[in-house]
Amino acid sequence: MAMAAGHLMRCGVIHPRVFPVLHPTTHRVEKIMSRGSRVIRCQVHDSRGFTTVQPKIRKVEEIESTAGQVIQCRAAVAWEAGKPLVIEEVEVAPPKEMEVRLKILYTSLCHTDVYFWEAKGQTPLFPRIFGHEAGGIVESVGEGVTDLAPGDHVLPVFTGECKECAHCKHEESNMCDLLRINTERGVMISDGQSRFSINGEPIYHFLGTSTFSEYTVVHSGCVAKIDPLAPLDKVCVLSCGISTGLGATLNVAKPPKGSTVAIFGLGAVGLAAAEGARIAGASRIIGVDRNPTKFNEAKKFGVTEFVNPMDYDRPVQEVLAEMTGGGVDRSVECTGNVNAMISAFECVHDGWGVAVLVGVPHKEAQFKTHPINFLTERTLKGTFFGNYKPRTDLPLVVEKYMNKELELEKFITHSVPFSEINKAFDYMLKGDGLRCIIHMDG
Amino acid sequence: MAMAAGHLMRCGVIHPRVFPVLHPTTHRVEKIMSRGSRVIRCQVHDSRGFTTVQPKIRKVEEIESTAGQVIQCRAAVAWEAGKPLVIEEVEVAPPKEMEVRLKILYTSLCHTDVYFWEAKGQTPLFPRIFGHEAGGIVESVGEGVTDLAPGDHVLPVFTGECKECAHCKHEESNMCDLLRINTERGVMISDGQSRFSINGEPIYHFLGTSTFSEYTVVHSGCVAKIDPLAPLDKVCVLSCGISTGLGATLNVAKPPKGSTVAIFGLGAVGLAAAEGARIAGASRIIGVDRNPTKFNEAKKFGVTEFVNPMDYDRPVQEVLAEMTGGGVDRSVECTGNVNAMISAFECVHDGWGVAVLVGVPHKEAQFKTHPINFLTERTLKGTFFGNYKPRTDLPLVVEKYMNKELELEKFITHSVPFSEINKAFDYMLKGDGLRCIIHMDG
Repeated sequence: MAMAAGHLMRCGVIHPRVFPVLHPTTHRVEKIMSRGSRVIRCQVHDSRGFTTVQPKIRKVEEIESTAGQVIQCRAAVAWEAGKPLVIEEVEVAPPKEMEVRLKILYTSLCHTDVYFWEAKGQTPLFPRIFGHEAGGIVESVGEGVTDLAPGDHVLPVFTGECKECAHCKHEESNMCDLLRINTERGVMISDGQSRFSINGEPIYHFLGTSTFSEYTVVHSGCVAKIDPLAPLDKVCVLSCGISTGLGATLNVAKPPKGSTVAIFGLGAVGLAAAEGARIAGASRIIGVDRNPTKFNEAKKFGVTEFVNPMDYDRPVQEVLAEMTGGGVDRSVECTGNVNAMISAFECVHDGWGVAVLVGVPHKEAQFKTHPINFLTERTLKGTFFGNYKPRTDLPLVVEKYMNKELELEKFITHSVPFSEINKAFDYMLKGDGLRCIIHMDG
Repeated sequence: MAMAAGHLMRCGVIHPRVFPVLHPTTHRVEKIMSRGSRVIRCQVHDSRGFTTVQPKIRKVEEIESTAGQVIQCRAAVAWEAGKPLVIEEVEVAPPKEMEVRLKILYTSLCHTDVYFWEAKGQTPLFPRIFGHEAGGIVESVGEGVTDLAPGDHVLPVFTGECKECAHCKHEESNMCDLLRINTERGVMISDGQSRFSINGEPIYHFLGTSTFSEYTVVHSGCVAKIDPLAPLDKVCVLSCGISTGLGATLNVAKPPKGSTVAIFGLGAVGLAAAEGARIAGASRIIGVDRNPTKFNEAKKFGVTEFVNPMDYDRPVQEVLAEMTGGGVDRSVECTGNVNAMISAFECVHDGWGVAVLVGVPHKEAQFKTHPINFLTERTLKGTFFGNYKPRTDLPLVVEKYMNKELELEKFITHSVPFSEINKAFDYMLKGDGLRCIIHMDG
């Protein structure tokens, strides 16, 4: 399938075969000059200023497309639970109906990848290609896909938005009936098959995204089309954890300007929740964590005070109530520990306090509290992916970053080439840093 | 203290000594004609049409006032837990600083009166004058009271609004720090004394209202001044239970038009919650109660379907989820039973469902649920007095009744003269009817 020059201009994206010297993270495309289907030249802005770039292929019809063909590429395959990933040559089948094939440029590692790679709490499913936080470009689209086209810059997301079900049609929900997260499924929903194989043997998908591969196939409902000028090596972290924490505060807790917010758990999700509180104009952001080494880093995210529950011999909710004259206005729980959930609820002020649960609990966990804590006008809510509808809302979160309202750089503490992806696992297992960006071209 | 004719006109209220033939529930005052401090005549509208009434006292200075004096009147005294009340002659001291003395015209009986009269769950405090749902007229005001004057029509409320504390100043809370409900206190907060006595021996107050007395003294912050044209024998039920249920739905659950609402417990509070759902335009209102005899009555309140949990061998939340394609949009729990609370929460739809707890639980009750029920985007809230701020909001609820948006007549199933107040207790103990209005002049 050849691309029309018009399309190249419309989406502001340059096909890598036409202008191979351009890189989306270092060059900002200002203008593409073309005549009919002939591409003349392209004006770009990079660190040194404006430059004019000549195309390598002048007629767009000449672009050799991989659409409809099996692509051979590198993927990091998890052959067994807890064992280092192995970079393998895999075959990636073309997208089927309502699917798209993406070229992944950057991916990052999230705890959920590690949790299912360790496979301690669930049925193991191997060999599998993990990865779900990523940024890439649409390579080709399957039948029926009308709102995505080759060249679009996108974030694949572990949960989708079909735009047809009761949840998608409801203003408040993002829990799509068709494309809601499914951690057990290792195949595509349309035909129950994998699109990955090695020598004809299938390799399982993970969360419908499997971004630890140079190319992957994703349901088109799980793909957010974003501003092509956004740097994919930064905004890729919005695919999961950062949006989850940010949305928990901005969309669910909704702290009024000047309020006091407690954040339980100062990992990447908790710090994103703190970033949300900072953006909302909270006057006090109290970080609660059992690990005091996290406190210094947390200051960058607007956290103003710290409480380590281990320093007290009484429940931390009492400590917080004392610090705040009766309780915080909002709290966001990002640990998944049920006792932290109870504390996060009981520490909010009576009359108006709202607590939001984000962390995923143990299967047998029981949330317990005296009902009087509700009757005294406290609210308890939970959220999934920060209540963001992936396709509708993520482009707007990207805009928040582009407008410099949201700071993403401080979440990115490491980067590694794809060939060294196992280092990203090591960092996370050691609790070193927040997000490690994996460069797929390395 | 004499009343100025101007004041009589301003508040539209006729002093009973000036026009003794008028009765606020049967006559609507259209016009008072006066010249200076002389009252000429009054035009009223009653069931037969317009009439002109001559005053018995023409000069308002001649009105003999009881202000500043001890009033001797009838009160129904509870001498012992669970024993019939005894109508006694009591002395009611004048109101002190920030207090008002009210002439109660109508009072009704609420479960909370019966609960503390039975004194099974708490420290008994006797002799005591119960009663907290009522309508009356201000007889006199104590020092510092500026927003209430003799003749004002009012509803005394068991919880107050000082308008100065953090809760009163917060848009969402009605849990006033100074005047919040206190079931243990039997005296006035200003001096720790009772205003009631018999032969010099104090009789305890109840909830700061003690409306089972022809006159009572109440903190001015616990008095809602209402439209003097509102019939006090109807709107008196808004002092407690009916507002609690109504506000739980209208102010807290806030069902969007066309939504499905489940009401747990079809007593007066639950039916008021159903009335709120009807007013909000809910398309399905599902009543849940273990007593099927309540179902017929509930239809009058807009309840469209009924579920008796005793008819099923699986949790009622599962039954409701099946009936509604995944769960109700809103639920309101009005029983106080902790298992009903859990069902009320777990029966709301994931993605957007909101459950509201109203019923007062047992001291040792524990609300338990799996945190995943929150993470799938359900909200749990509780409310106190339907989140109404007594002084600010009750006048507007009265207006809702006056505008025929809210129907109160259907809550009133019995009426008795004050001398037969124990009959009202019998009705409630038998579960016969919803509200019994006690006429203080009988």
